[in-house]
Amino acid sequence: MIPTPKSLKMKSLLIFLVFSLLFVPSLCTQEPSNCHQLTRNMILEYPDGGRGGADPEEVILQCTSWRFAVEANNMNSWKTIPQECADYVKNYMLGKGYLLDLERVSNEASVFAKSVHFEGDSKDAWVFDVDETLLSNLPYYADHAFGLEVFDGVEFDKWVSKAMAPAIESSLRLYEEVLSLGFKVFLLTGRSEKLRDVTAQNLINVGFKNWDKLILRNTEDHGKLATIFKSEKRSEMMKEGFRILGNSGDQWSDLLGFPMSTRSFKLPNPMYYIP
Amino acid sequence: MIPTPKSLKMKSLLIFLVFSLLFVPSLCTQEPSNCHQLTRNMILEYPDGGRGGADPEEVILQCTSWRFAVEANNMNSWKTIPQECADYVKNYMLGKGYLLDLERVSNEASVFAKSVHFEGDSKDAWVFDVDETLLSNLPYYADHAFGLEVFDGVEFDKWVSKAMAPAIESSLRLYEEVLSLGFKVFLLTGRSEKLRDVTAQNLINVGFKNWDKLILRNTEDHGKLATIFKSEKRSEMMKEGFRILGNSGDQWSDLLGFPMSTRSFKLPNPMYYIP
Repeated sequence: MIPTPKSLKMKSLLIFLVFSLLFVPSLCTQEPSNCHQLTRNMILEYPDGGRGGADPEEVILQCTSWRFAVEANNMNSWKTIPQECADYVKNYMLGKGYLLDLERVSNEASVFAKSVHFEGDSKDAWVFDVDETLLSNLPYYADHAFGLEVFDGVEFDKWVSKAMAPAIESSLRLYEEVLSLGFKVFLLTGRSEKLRDVTAQNLINVGFKNWDKLILRNTEDHGKLATIFKSEKRSEMMKEGFRILGNSGDQWSDLLGFPMSTRSFKLPNPMYYIP
Repeated sequence: MIPTPKSLKMKSLLIFLVFSLLFVPSLCTQEPSNCHQLTRNMILEYPDGGRGGADPEEVILQCTSWRFAVEANNMNSWKTIPQECADYVKNYMLGKGYLLDLERVSNEASVFAKSVHFEGDSKDAWVFDVDETLLSNLPYYADHAFGLEVFDGVEFDKWVSKAMAPAIESSLRLYEEVLSLGFKVFLLTGRSEKLRDVTAQNLINVGFKNWDKLILRNTEDHGKLATIFKSEKRSEMMKEGFRILGNSGDQWSDLLGFPMSTRSFKLPNPMYYIP
């Protein structure tokens, strides 16, 4: 099935996908409980059950369409990525696509940040989410099939406790620019309050400094949907007189609700969904 | 540059793009005033000015990234598509990608619509935009370089007056389902009130029937941003006691503002941007 290596430049993307498809069955053998699909009508059904016989162009088309639906917030709630898109997501996350998308969203946010007229009362604020917005958990997700496995909070917290998550470089540049322009910077994360110290340490270690407030989930916030929790916290900011002009997050639950920021910036994340 | 026709299945996407790139310079010769780019940092700069020498994989990557930024509402205001993406957008609109994305958003909306618990007071409503949501202006945009030309309102209204726009089939299926489930259906369009008759005629001709209200821009609405105009109209619906549960539109200005619908569904449209 793998083509000969001539004309590699033109074929490399397709070769990579054909090659990658061969690994889907082996992942399923190791983790049978995770080999389910969320919405059957999302993805073409292949006669051989998706075990390597699918047209790679068709897989790219279908998985690109799925990813668009995720990024535009059209998908109903989902728990794992579609099995057929396992290698598509992996290739996207480890390849140039993810980096390009991160760069673009930071560049657009930067253009907007520089266009803001400041009132001069130090009440103009920018909100940043943490995971997959400032810090990257790609090392963790690389060990957990890039979203093909159901999220395991206990395992994830072990990773968080190591405080080893690298910075998303384009977000760090935006972060520093936003601070230097004079915005108040609020970090608003779904992480638990008990992870405050490791979170702050991780952020500082990789270059995020001088935030105005780091807000985590208190005991009373556990069990709340992220949209509700984060809206409540933005509402508190508003009551304290802050104008939330920019909001950067990788989940729509970081951005939607009331009040919304003047401008929201959706960072790419096809690996998981937080309602 | 065009590869030999063997292994066509695997190469066809790339061949198509290489081939298509050859037409970018000719478009520029015909319409020099439209051959500008909006945000220089969005797109790689090619040493030869994008005249066919660019790596087709790189063009796909960059234009896919641009399209994601459009669909996730990360882009600042733009007036034409990037010149380098002229054929990418054309191929997307005429190819399988656009149809797949349309199908998926309708399917997800349908799943949500069927999950709704009705209060039984006939106040549960669904809002649909018209252009690129129920009706397709693809025949018009095919004659106007798929968004590479700056929008010409006079020319567009001539097309609208013909009442010849075809239905978007997946939207028609959703529309009929939403009606049969018992939603009140409001059509909310940025078209002018003077186009009411041709708009209604066009909608009926292609199968859209039995809406509860068709709302167009009155004299006092001209000059308002679409986000403002549409928010005001949704606000009026709310004051009349309607609960807006679903909202389908191809522009974020159809969906954002206050009040927002419980769920918003963003139809694909990389051809133009309405603030």
